[in-house]
Amino acid sequence: MNPAIYSEFIKPKDIAINDQFWGAFMERVRTKVIPYQWKALNDKVPGAEPSYCIRNFKLAAELTHPDLYYGVPRDIGFGGMVFQDSDLAKWIEAAAYSLAWHPDGELEKTLDETIDIICNAQQDDGYLDTYYIIKGLEKRFTNLKDNHELYCLGHYIEAATAYYEVAGKRKLLDAMIRYVDCVDKNIGAEEGKLHGYPGHEIAEMALVRLYAVTNDEKHLKLAKYFIDQRGQPPLFFEEETRRNGNTFYWKDSYVQYQYYQAGKPVREQHIAEGHAVRAVYLYSGMADVARLTGDDSLLAVCGDLWNDIVHRQMYITGSIGQSAYGEAFSYDYDLPNDTAYAETCAAIGLAFFARRMASIMPKGEYADVIERTLFNGIISGMALDGESFFYVNPLEALPQASLKDRRMRHVKIERQKWFGCACCPPNLARIIASLGSYVHSANGGSVYTHLYVGSEARLAPGGRELKIKIETKYPWEGQVDISFALEGKAAFSYGLRIPSWCKSFSLKLNGDNAAYSMQDGYALLNREWQDGDRITLTFDMPVNLVETNPHVRDNSGRIAVTRGPIVYCLEEKDNGKELFRLHAGRPEDFTVTYGKDLPEGLCTISFTGKREKDWQDGALYRNLADAAYEDKKLILIPYYAWANRGAGEMTVWIHK
Amino acid sequence: MNPAIYSEFIKPKDIAINDQFWGAFMERVRTKVIPYQWKALNDKVPGAEPSYCIRNFKLAAELTHPDLYYGVPRDIGFGGMVFQDSDLAKWIEAAAYSLAWHPDGELEKTLDETIDIICNAQQDDGYLDTYYIIKGLEKRFTNLKDNHELYCLGHYIEAATAYYEVAGKRKLLDAMIRYVDCVDKNIGAEEGKLHGYPGHEIAEMALVRLYAVTNDEKHLKLAKYFIDQRGQPPLFFEEETRRNGNTFYWKDSYVQYQYYQAGKPVREQHIAEGHAVRAVYLYSGMADVARLTGDDSLLAVCGDLWNDIVHRQMYITGSIGQSAYGEAFSYDYDLPNDTAYAETCAAIGLAFFARRMASIMPKGEYADVIERTLFNGIISGMALDGESFFYVNPLEALPQASLKDRRMRHVKIERQKWFGCACCPPNLARIIASLGSYVHSANGGSVYTHLYVGSEARLAPGGRELKIKIETKYPWEGQVDISFALEGKAAFSYGLRIPSWCKSFSLKLNGDNAAYSMQDGYALLNREWQDGDRITLTFDMPVNLVETNPHVRDNSGRIAVTRGPIVYCLEEKDNGKELFRLHAGRPEDFTVTYGKDLPEGLCTISFTGKREKDWQDGALYRNLADAAYEDKKLILIPYYAWANRGAGEMTVWIHK
Repeated sequence: MNPAIYSEFIKPKDIAINDQFWGAFMERVRTKVIPYQWKALNDKVPGAEPSYCIRNFKLAAELTHPDLYYGVPRDIGFGGMVFQDSDLAKWIEAAAYSLAWHPDGELEKTLDETIDIICNAQQDDGYLDTYYIIKGLEKRFTNLKDNHELYCLGHYIEAATAYYEVAGKRKLLDAMIRYVDCVDKNIGAEEGKLHGYPGHEIAEMALVRLYAVTNDEKHLKLAKYFIDQRGQPPLFFEEETRRNGNTFYWKDSYVQYQYYQAGKPVREQHIAEGHAVRAVYLYSGMADVARLTGDDSLLAVCGDLWNDIVHRQMYITGSIGQSAYGEAFSYDYDLPNDTAYAETCAAIGLAFFARRMASIMPKGEYADVIERTLFNGIISGMALDGESFFYVNPLEALPQASLKDRRMRHVKIERQKWFGCACCPPNLARIIASLGSYVHSANGGSVYTHLYVGSEARLAPGGRELKIKIETKYPWEGQVDISFALEGKAAFSYGLRIPSWCKSFSLKLNGDNAAYSMQDGYALLNREWQDGDRITLTFDMPVNLVETNPHVRDNSGRIAVTRGPIVYCLEEKDNGKELFRLHAGRPEDFTVTYGKDLPEGLCTISFTGKREKDWQDGALYRNLADAAYEDKKLILIPYYAWANRGAGEMTVWIHK
Repeated sequence: MNPAIYSEFIKPKDIAINDQFWGAFMERVRTKVIPYQWKALNDKVPGAEPSYCIRNFKLAAELTHPDLYYGVPRDIGFGGMVFQDSDLAKWIEAAAYSLAWHPDGELEKTLDETIDIICNAQQDDGYLDTYYIIKGLEKRFTNLKDNHELYCLGHYIEAATAYYEVAGKRKLLDAMIRYVDCVDKNIGAEEGKLHGYPGHEIAEMALVRLYAVTNDEKHLKLAKYFIDQRGQPPLFFEEETRRNGNTFYWKDSYVQYQYYQAGKPVREQHIAEGHAVRAVYLYSGMADVARLTGDDSLLAVCGDLWNDIVHRQMYITGSIGQSAYGEAFSYDYDLPNDTAYAETCAAIGLAFFARRMASIMPKGEYADVIERTLFNGIISGMALDGESFFYVNPLEALPQASLKDRRMRHVKIERQKWFGCACCPPNLARIIASLGSYVHSANGGSVYTHLYVGSEARLAPGGRELKIKIETKYPWEGQVDISFALEGKAAFSYGLRIPSWCKSFSLKLNGDNAAYSMQDGYALLNREWQDGDRITLTFDMPVNLVETNPHVRDNSGRIAVTRGPIVYCLEEKDNGKELFRLHAGRPEDFTVTYGKDLPEGLCTISFTGKREKDWQDGALYRNLADAAYEDKKLILIPYYAWANRGAGEMTVWIHK
């Protein structure tokens, strides 16, 4: 490891997004998703399953402070999932980021009042999980494997640090520091403590983020303990399960404790296994701890896990977690399109992991994956109107199969308003609202631009303020104009990511061809910069036909259509039923159209392919005959925009 | 309907099989399967899950006759599945057929002793189901939907009639007539009776078979009642479910009461739905009752259901029931290969249905399906050594997926010794042992040969004895020699089925080209026959590449290899891993080899295809490049013989 090349990503408050593409998403999150989720958290969405989330906090506060009364009957009990608290944390985090680019006094007031309620539920020793506060504190920390206390803690740390960074307010942060102290007193290496760790990871990376704010070694140490202790024999979860009466859902499954990535020490884990969201949250924390502790052995497994995911278990959309059973990874090169689980949260988690790896080593493949997930498997989780959501993001949709085939019953053909287990919508809100923090990173001697997002950012490479302005119509057009504002001159290396999809580009500096060197996917300009320097990076953005490694059974003989970072798909609406009868052939002429008959100025691609003709006799089988095709205009729309015009078939992969 | 063309299939006792192919299977059933299953029924297979089947009967007999003691503790309780009785019935039926072609005094003695035990368990009013005799008779007939009394009854009728037809012994037959009387007193249209019907069908066709022996209209009437009453509103099963506390497993499923084919009257059922074995058993009974009652409305739905199965829901192997969920049909043109359920028993049931349709109308498509199922999806259920069995018969096997993919956990890569729910092995035994009864059918003026099986048969068209001898090496070779023996001369039409796979054949009569007319898939010779007439039918038997109707998503872009009635497959053993990387191309030269390095003189087919080369860089996706293939000799073996040489991949469908 080389700490000299570590770079820090920019914080949301230091970048103002002003982007045709992402601006629309962020605005949708701000004006639709965050208000809608606020209503949902307060059980005020007519017809939707109640969340009970705010009610739980109010009740917990009432039970903690007998003088308080929020109007919640004290005997009403806990509502929702055991991890219901986390939904509010995600909402707070998203709302905080939203404030960073769009101040909103009303929303900030709501946040402060909500944080007051949360803090009123906190116990004297710092403990703060409404499930146990309401149902009985004597049971707390007795089921780390399944009951998500440390998961909720992790999300609250994320929320608290985000709000602190944006608004400078410490109340929730201080509450979380106290809660971490409480956990630290109960869990750890020392005798008398539980030698446990989270059943659903996230606390690891959250504690690192807390450490970045507090600089308190205790916070890094606890993150490191959770990672180092995980899967050490004798298995903590096995002992805990025994104490809890041996109810172990995954006992007869091939995943067993690897469902939690807890069947063996993390340094012996080289293949991504188990619940996909948990996995990438863990790997994100591992990368963080590896970076901060200079732990080469931990970084090495992060690299192995990264390679396993990205080269053997990732959909072209950046989605991961192939299997509905356990919402989990399955095995290398297994990438079923129709039964894909491909949870929105898992793609989000992969972006987290990628950003952390990019922070350690500026290699284009990390930001390539961030881009792939963001433009495809993440935002597919949200309708274009911001009002409904996918948990599962298949790469092939068959309405009849979703109705009649048990293997596909998890695959919804239309996005849902809300979920009983509502992890994905608020997770979407927080990553989109914090999108700016993926754009640039910097260290003393270098600045990197990873994503091309219209924005104005403030960085400080080597302590000197640098403003970077990006103007672009990316991903629909390939030109990116970048300009610098700085006082005086400054020498530093500036790296511009050249996406792996791009085979040809031009790079101009102040109107002339720029001298650059390519390194690990970045075009590096190493020079003395001055105010007003202008860079124009222009990517050729042809339509590409993409094929999959022949180890992948499900995509054999098929291509996908991409342009720039966007993966396209066929929908029934444009192409009729039985999309599997369509063949791309080897088209050379593509028509790229902007926004015709589609919402949001979406770019569509069309070309002449073929369709297998009906057989005349209705037979099911026949001796192979010369293929009977008819020419057929294929019309593709961006994958993320599917299922916005009613229910129907969809496919990403098309027969050659 | 035209009763003049109805024909009766020959009975097992009237045909002696002497066939290279089927003789080996029958011998295996006789010497391996029947003795092994006898041990299993008696809980004497070391390491196998006990059946408890014989023990249940002994216990029921002891409870019925306090003076009897078979050594079974009286407080030990019922063992096995609720339908455990049926396993013994299937065994008796298979053993009876076995006696027909291979007399065996020891086996017959065992049968008689077993029948004594069974009859000792019978109640005074004829009732005979060990589950309720042991667990409490007050509950009998209270759960027709799930508790399989009428299913077991059906199997016992089949066993009793088979044994009566073969050995002329009435004891079990008489017992079953008494049991039917008991059922008839309790279930039927009359007031005070339950207006119910079987949850798992088979009694319908069994009662028709009983009627053929007894000529007692009551037996046909009860079969007809079960069929006519099925699914009539108000739904009997719905009311029964309510009485039993509303536990209905399929309530939230799309199948609901159609799991049992009992959600609507049978004459409103035009699509094959629900549990596949139940479905085809019902349809078999419907065809039987339609034939005997001349019911055109019933025959019309049989035709619809037949067409739906054969033209829209049948695997090329003749297997049916695509979905593990409910062991059921899924929907038209859904034919997944890897997750196929394709239960052995369902293919057997389809052969039952086909034989009954062929009995009504001699159309080649019926016997084509009998042949397709028998040579492929039925016998694939048994290992070549007769010692292990498949319940599920996938068309693509992936060992890693069966281990790690929940969608495929029902797909076993190696045949199993025995099953807790052991329906398939004894069902296999009974159909193979009764194979002769599928070969010919006859009525007054016509004889049809449906299957080409080396045999000597005795028929009586128009009351005059006719002996037909078939000599052939079918299915490996296309020549079939047929000779007639009869006293004097007889005029009748003789129909020889020309299989749909056959595009060219020659037909000689006594050495000269025969004059024949083609009708519905049969070559008809209408003449006056005499003793010693010889027919030589020679099918051209090239290797065929077969493709699937473009409505079928899963076979798009793929071919299967067949020769004669045999469907071939690729196995890992011969072709290496990742069979999905192989492409057939458009080969014209095939090598057909007999028995090299394979058990049983199996015929193999090989040809030069292609294999996708590895990518050098290990990337998961890339821009479409020119396909890099290497020539690869593909070696195929008969599908039914897969998984006889260790675990590995298998596929029927190969990329074009």
